[in-house]
Amino acid sequence: MKFCSECASPVTLQIPVDDTRERFVCTACGTIHYQNPKMVVGSIPVWEEDGATKVLLCKRAIEPRLGFWTLPAGFMENKETTAQAAQRETEEEAGANIQLHELFSILNVPHVHQVHLFYRATLLDLNYAAGVESLEVGIFSEEQIPWDDIAFPTISHTLKFFFADLAKVKDGGRFQMHEHDIFKPMRDG
Amino acid sequence: MKFCSECASPVTLQIPVDDTRERFVCTACGTIHYQNPKMVVGSIPVWEEDGATKVLLCKRAIEPRLGFWTLPAGFMENKETTAQAAQRETEEEAGANIQLHELFSILNVPHVHQVHLFYRATLLDLNYAAGVESLEVGIFSEEQIPWDDIAFPTISHTLKFFFADLAKVKDGGRFQMHEHDIFKPMRDG
Repeated sequence: MKFCSECASPVTLQIPVDDTRERFVCTACGTIHYQNPKMVVGSIPVWEEDGATKVLLCKRAIEPRLGFWTLPAGFMENKETTAQAAQRETEEEAGANIQLHELFSILNVPHVHQVHLFYRATLLDLNYAAGVESLEVGIFSEEQIPWDDIAFPTISHTLKFFFADLAKVKDGGRFQMHEHDIFKPMRDG
Repeated sequence: MKFCSECASPVTLQIPVDDTRERFVCTACGTIHYQNPKMVVGSIPVWEEDGATKVLLCKRAIEPRLGFWTLPAGFMENKETTAQAAQRETEEEAGANIQLHELFSILNVPHVHQVHLFYRATLLDLNYAAGVESLEVGIFSEEQIPWDDIAFPTISHTLKFFFADLAKVKDGGRFQMHEHDIFKPMRDG
């Protein structure tokens, strides 16, 4: 940020009165421009087939991590809820019809100012199709998941939490909410 | 937003190529200025006293809702996790020492582009003190809570979820994660 979005004058980094952090402050009108983390919201769309539980993944058609696999997810927009964002991103990236369930994971990625949320979901049919941000969409059992080619650590962790819970559910347990923080830039965590 | 924060030229609202929503786009350099929801994060600090479970609340010293009661909470900052934000806000607004537990509620407030998160917490001592954004801090049993003077519906809902779960916990149940959406401007919901 170089200029004030209200009056076009230059901004400087300074700690405002009654504050403890550096903010971009306008040198002319004094407007303080706060910057806050963004939410990335997605789903874990599940399909039962031949006695196996399969999860839908998308191969990314855009950077970062073009060609790597991800759960459908993207930046939450103003005027929508987290559940609506999860449903919209799943539709946009995978053309998938889902029924959304409860929130399953929340992952902080503080070095990139992001919080990622994933909802469990049931895939309602197999009429999925890659959206403009995906090269390919497929469904994968735990053994079939391309673990070495997952796009982001928040996706790897969410998939591992999911399959670990699934084993418990098959033994009479239940799905839980998972909280996890990713502090360092890791590509294959 | 009136001017581009990168080059100081005027921005206009338009739908960029490959997008479906209006964004502020710079008329000179073409930068797209995305706007996304902000997270408000806080805690439910609990103290056990005389057989009663009491919750810490702060009386707001700032607008909006000056003079009304709230759980300690505030805007999440860049470079911190949601748990760190909850701990920081509790310290700043109530001077309270807490041990944070798991995430308890997530409340969408789409008309103001906010998502509110509250963590359960244990108050470690009674050495709390109002911070600059609070007029007063106190601990309240369910019967003592000033239900008619709660600042925001996200706070009322979180407190109601908490005391409803608490009754279940005392019968051998457990605390659950709560998801709730607040669609309309309500002041006393």
